[in-house]
Amino acid sequence: MNGEEEDVTTHHFQPTHYHTTIGWHDAVLHIADGDAVVTTTVDAGGQDANEAQATPGGNPQTGPFYIDGAEPGDTLVVHIDRITPNRPRGYAAQIVSANVVDPEFVRQLPPRKIVYWAVDHERQIVSALDASGPLGKVGLPLAPMLGCFGVGPIGAQAISTATSAEHGGNMDYRGFAAGATAYFPVFAPGALFHLGDGHATQGDGEIVGTGVEISCEVQFTVGLRKGQKIRWPRGENDDYIFTVGNARPLDQALQHATTEMIRWLGEEYAFDIASASSLLGQCVEYDVGNVFDPAYTMVCKVPKRLLSHVG
Amino acid sequence: MNGEEEDVTTHHFQPTHYHTTIGWHDAVLHIADGDAVVTTTVDAGGQDANEAQATPGGNPQTGPFYIDGAEPGDTLVVHIDRITPNRPRGYAAQIVSANVVDPEFVRQLPPRKIVYWAVDHERQIVSALDASGPLGKVGLPLAPMLGCFGVGPIGAQAISTATSAEHGGNMDYRGFAAGATAYFPVFAPGALFHLGDGHATQGDGEIVGTGVEISCEVQFTVGLRKGQKIRWPRGENDDYIFTVGNARPLDQALQHATTEMIRWLGEEYAFDIASASSLLGQCVEYDVGNVFDPAYTMVCKVPKRLLSHVG
Amino acid sequence: MNGEEEDVTTHHFQPTHYHTTIGWHDAVLHIADGDAVVTTTVDAGGQDANEAQATPGGNPQTGPFYIDGAEPGDTLVVHIDRITPNRPRGYAAQIVSANVVDPEFVRQLPPRKIVYWAVDHERQIVSALDASGPLGKVGLPLAPMLGCFGVGPIGAQAISTATSAEHGGNMDYRGFAAGATAYFPVFAPGALFHLGDGHATQGDGEIVGTGVEISCEVQFTVGLRKGQKIRWPRGENDDYIFTVGNARPLDQALQHATTEMIRWLGEEYAFDIASASSLLGQCVEYDVGNVFDPAYTMVCKVPKRLLSHVG
Amino acid sequence: MNGEEEDVTTHHFQPTHYHTTIGWHDAVLHIADGDAVVTTTVDAGGQDANEAQATPGGNPQTGPFYIDGAEPGDTLVVHIDRITPNRPRGYAAQIVSANVVDPEFVRQLPPRKIVYWAVDHERQIVSALDASGPLGKVGLPLAPMLGCFGVGPIGAQAISTATSAEHGGNMDYRGFAAGATAYFPVFAPGALFHLGDGHATQGDGEIVGTGVEISCEVQFTVGLRKGQKIRWPRGENDDYIFTVGNARPLDQALQHATTEMIRWLGEEYAFDIASASSLLGQCVEYDVGNVFDPAYTMVCKVPKRLLSHVG
Repeated sequence: MNGEEEDVTTHHFQPTHYHTTIGWHDAVLHIADGDAVVTTTVDAGGQDANEAQATPGGNPQTGPFYIDGAEPGDTLVVHIDRITPNRPRGYAAQIVSANVVDPEFVRQLPPRKIVYWAVDHERQIVSALDASGPLGKVGLPLAPMLGCFGVGPIGAQAISTATSAEHGGNMDYRGFAAGATAYFPVFAPGALFHLGDGHATQGDGEIVGTGVEISCEVQFTVGLRKGQKIRWPRGENDDYIFTVGNARPLDQALQHATTEMIRWLGEEYAFDIASASSLLGQCVEYDVGNVFDPAYTMVCKVPKRLLSHVG
Repeated sequence: MNGEEEDVTTHHFQPTHYHTTIGWHDAVLHIADGDAVVTTTVDAGGQDANEAQATPGGNPQTGPFYIDGAEPGDTLVVHIDRITPNRPRGYAAQIVSANVVDPEFVRQLPPRKIVYWAVDHERQIVSALDASGPLGKVGLPLAPMLGCFGVGPIGAQAISTATSAEHGGNMDYRGFAAGATAYFPVFAPGALFHLGDGHATQGDGEIVGTGVEISCEVQFTVGLRKGQKIRWPRGENDDYIFTVGNARPLDQALQHATTEMIRWLGEEYAFDIASASSLLGQCVEYDVGNVFDPAYTMVCKVPKRLLSHVG
Repeated sequence: MNGEEEDVTTHHFQPTHYHTTIGWHDAVLHIADGDAVVTTTVDAGGQDANEAQATPGGNPQTGPFYIDGAEPGDTLVVHIDRITPNRPRGYAAQIVSANVVDPEFVRQLPPRKIVYWAVDHERQIVSALDASGPLGKVGLPLAPMLGCFGVGPIGAQAISTATSAEHGGNMDYRGFAAGATAYFPVFAPGALFHLGDGHATQGDGEIVGTGVEISCEVQFTVGLRKGQKIRWPRGENDDYIFTVGNARPLDQALQHATTEMIRWLGEEYAFDIASASSLLGQCVEYDVGNVFDPAYTMVCKVPKRLLSHVG
Repeated sequence: MNGEEEDVTTHHFQPTHYHTTIGWHDAVLHIADGDAVVTTTVDAGGQDANEAQATPGGNPQTGPFYIDGAEPGDTLVVHIDRITPNRPRGYAAQIVSANVVDPEFVRQLPPRKIVYWAVDHERQIVSALDASGPLGKVGLPLAPMLGCFGVGPIGAQAISTATSAEHGGNMDYRGFAAGATAYFPVFAPGALFHLGDGHATQGDGEIVGTGVEISCEVQFTVGLRKGQKIRWPRGENDDYIFTVGNARPLDQALQHATTEMIRWLGEEYAFDIASASSLLGQCVEYDVGNVFDPAYTMVCKVPKRLLSHVG
C-alpha cells in the first residue's frame, strides 16, 4: 500500500476502451494486493490528453481492474498515489444546475454553455479562459481529484457513471485527491475497480455539473482487507477518516455516511454507539460531494488528531 | 462596527426574562447603529451561570433589542465580539438523533440521555465528564458559538426557537463564533434582535440535538445598512463570506443559500449570474448547520482570498 | 356535533378583522362544546363576497374562536357542516409552481399570472373564464373546501398562514370539505380556532399555488374531547378516517401521518403496532395536500368499511 | 392491442430462468407489435405456484421479451390483459418500514417478520392467516397488480429490481392492474420487456416493504409507437391517464410525474403549458407508489372525463 516500497509491482496500463457504466465488465488487467497501476483517464466528455475524442462522453471509465483474491465481503483499498492532469486546459459548464438554486430563480438562469479553463502546471493555478469581468481576476489552486470511481456493484448491476451508490461511482468529492485512500465494499469477484472523470479543480457539490474536466495520468496502489465488510465507501487522508453516503435527498446521504461512521468507530476504535454518538455530536464535520446527479453525496469526517489516543 | 473604537457606546444588559419564540416581542433595550451590548445568555435548558433554573428551557432568548432606525427592507449587522461561557460545565445529549442515521439503524440506538462536559477555560479544552472508554481520552478545543439568534420574523410571526427560517433562529452553525459578522434581513421595526443557546463546542449538524450547552457572556456590536434588502442570513469572518439557508430537506437549504450567494456576488462583487456560477462551480464550499430541527441549515461559503482582486 | 339537532346553539358571526398568522390572538367569540357557528371567510387575497378588499391578502383567517373549556392536551373536534362560496367567480394562479416540475423545465414556464374562474352555483360547475383552446371546454365539479384552518400553535407561536404544522394551517387538502370532521390537538387555552382560504375547487397539491380562491359562508360545529391527546390533525368523512402530516419533504409529511395513524388504530381500534402495520401495508391510501408551501401536506387514509367489524 | 381480436398471436411462454436486474439481457422470446403473451411470474421471493423455490429472491423477472422493431426513441405499449394469482396464499412483511414512520418512533417498532395471507379466489378476498385481534376480522378485496416491470434501461445499465427509474422497475403502483395500459420509453433495441413481482393486493406505498407477494399467471399484449419519445412511464385505465415519476424524495418523483403530464397534455391534447397548468392546478390527482425503495414513486393523474371534449 505504499508506492515507494521497493518491491511494489507497478503496472503500466494504457486503456483502449472505456465504460460509461460501472459494472461486472470483463477485466482489462489482473493485479495483486499491493500492486500499483499507472494509467490514464479521459475527461468526462471522452477526450484524451490531445483533446482527441477517444470514446463517447459520460464519465468514461478506465478499467475494470481485477484484484486477485478479492471476493464479496472483502474491502478493497485504493491509495491514490498521484493524479496528474496531462494537458493544458479543461472544460466546465458555466451555469449552476437548476436543482441547486431556488426553483423560481431558475427563470433567471442564462442558458447552459461550456467554457474552458487554463491549467498552469508550473504555477499550479487554474483560471477561466476568455473570462471578462471579475472572474478574469480569479486564479484557483490546481487541486486534481477523481470525480467518478468505484467497484462492480451489488447484484451484478451495471450502474451509470452519472450517479453513485454503495459501490462508489460519480461522487465528485474533492477529498478523493492524491494522498487519500479510498475503501470500497467488494461485491464482485475481483472487485472490478474502475476510475475516471478527473478534475483539475472543483467546488463542493459540482454545482455547475462539472469540475474543470480534464484527462489525467493516475497512479494508484491497491490493497485487500479480506473479510472486512463495509457498507459504504470510506476513506482517509492525513487529517481525517471519512465515510461517504450516496443518495437523495442529502438528508439520506448524511444518514448513510453517519451510520457508517458509527460502525467504523465501533469496529476500529472501540467506541460503543453511545460514546461514538457523544464524540460525533461534538466534533463531526460534513463535506458535500456531488449535488447534481440522481444520487447526491455527503461525507462524514472525524479528525484523526482526536482519535490519536484511542483505538 | 468595531468594539475597540473609542466612541462606541457599550450597553450592559442583564436579562430578567426570556423568550422561547423569536417574535415581535416588546423590546428590552433600545440601541443605536454602532452600539455594543454586553449581556448574558442562559443555556438551552434555561439555566444560568450558577446552573440555576432562570427560565423554562427551549433555547430561551435574551432580548429582543430594538435597533433605532431599523425598518423592514434594511439589513441588520451583528458583529459577534465575544462569546464567553461563564461556568465550568455544560451538558449535551448523548445519542445521535434518530433522523441522522439510517432508519433501520434506529432500532440499535440506546435511549437518549443527558451527559455533562467539563469546560477547562485555562487549557481551552472541552471534555466529557464520567466518560469511560475511548471518549474519556478525547479533548476538544473550546470553540464557543451561538446556536440560536435572529430577528423578528416576517409578517409578525412568533417562531419557535426550536427551528429556523429567513429571520435566523436555531441554525446551530459553528461559524457563528467570535469574530464573525452576521447579517439579517429586517422585517420588524427596530429589527428586534434576540440571542441565546450558546455552545462551548459543537460538531457540524448538532446531530445529537445539542452542542455542549452552556450559559455565556456575550458581547456584540450592531450596525445598520439602510435599504439593503437581503433574503436570508449572511455572514463573514476573516476567511469567508457566507450565506445561510434554513429549510428541509438539506437540498432546499442548499438552494436558498446558493441563490443568496449568487445575489451577493452580483450586488457587491460585480459578478453576473453566469460568472458567479462559473466561480461557485469551481470554488464553493458548503458547511452543514443544524440537521436536527424541523428546518435544517446549509451554509454556502466563498473564500475571501479569491475575491481580493475583485469587487 | 350535529348542526341539525334541535338544541344546538348556532352563533352567527360576522368578522371585522382577520389574521394572517394562526396564533394566540384575542378571541372574537367564546363558544361552547356542541355549538355551531355560521360565519364568512374572505378569499386568500382578502376580498369578500363583493370582491371588495376587506383586508390585506395572505390567507386571512376569520377568528379565532375560543372554545370554552378547551385546554392543552385536549382534542378539538370541528365538523364542517357547510362551505358555500358566496360570489360568482374566484381567481387562481395560472402557472404551476416552479417547485412541482423538474428544475430544468422551469426555464420553459410562462410568467405567473392570475386568471378568473366562473362558479355556476346552479349547475355546480367551475370553469375557466376567458379560456381559449382545450381549457375552455373543461368544466370541473364545484367542490368547496377550506384551504387553511387550525388552532393556536404550541408554545404561543404565531405561524404564517402560508404554511402548516401540528396545529393545522395551510394544508390545502380537498378532503376538508362539507361533511368532514377535523380533529386538532389543543395547545392554547380555548383552542383558538381560525379558518379561511376557501376554494371552489382545487386539484391535489394546490400545484399552481392556489385553488379557485373564493369568499365563502361557512358553518361548523365544535366539540371537545377532554384529555385526548393527539399529535397531528386527524379527520374523517363517510368513507375514511385520516391523519395529516405537514412537513418537507413529502417523505417526512408521510412519516408524520403514518405514525399518527398507527397511534389512532391502537387507541381506538385495538390494533397493536404489528397488526396496524399489517393492515396499513395492504390497505393504506395516501392523498397529497399542499405541495407549494414551506411545509407540504400528506394525508394517510384507512377505509372505514375495513374497520366496520373491529374497534 | 386487444387480446380478444381474432388475429392476435398469443405466445405461451414458460420461464426457466429469471433476472434480478432489469437490463440488456438476452431475450427469451421475440414477439411482434400486437402480439399477446401468456406467461407466469414467481413471487418476490422466487417461489412459484407450488411455493417451490424456482430462483433466488429479489423480485425475479420473467423475460426479457424482445419486441421486434422497437428502437431507442420509440414507446412500448403494454396492455395488462390479466393478472391471476396462481396459488392459495401469499406472504407479506408484517411491520412498517422504518423509513415511513417518524424516526424516533422506530424505537417502538417490533422486529420485522413474514406473515401469510390467504387468497380466496372464489370470494375474491385476501385475509391475514393466523391473525388474532382486529386484523383477523379484516378482509381485503383481491386486487392483483404487477409490482415490478419495465424495459432495458438507458445506457445499457442493469438496474436492480429493488428500485425504479425512467425504465420502470419496482414502482409498486396498484394502478398497474388488469385493464391498465403502461407506456415505457424504449432505450434498448427490442425494448427488452421484463415483468414480475405480482401482488394479490397492496396498500399505497408498499409501506411494509411487500404487498401480498404471490406467483401469478399474466397475460399482456404489446404495441409499438414508433418515434414517440416519452421520458417517464405513462399509463391509462378506464378513468385516468397517468404519468409515473421514480426518485427520492417524493417531491422529486412528483416533479418528474407532473412535468411528464404537462408534456403529455401538450403532445396529445393541445394544451399549451399555461392551460395545462391551469387544468392540473384545479383537477390533478396524485397517487403514491413505492415508498420503500431507494427510489420512490409518485403518480400524476388526470380524469379522462375532463378530457373527453378536448384533444
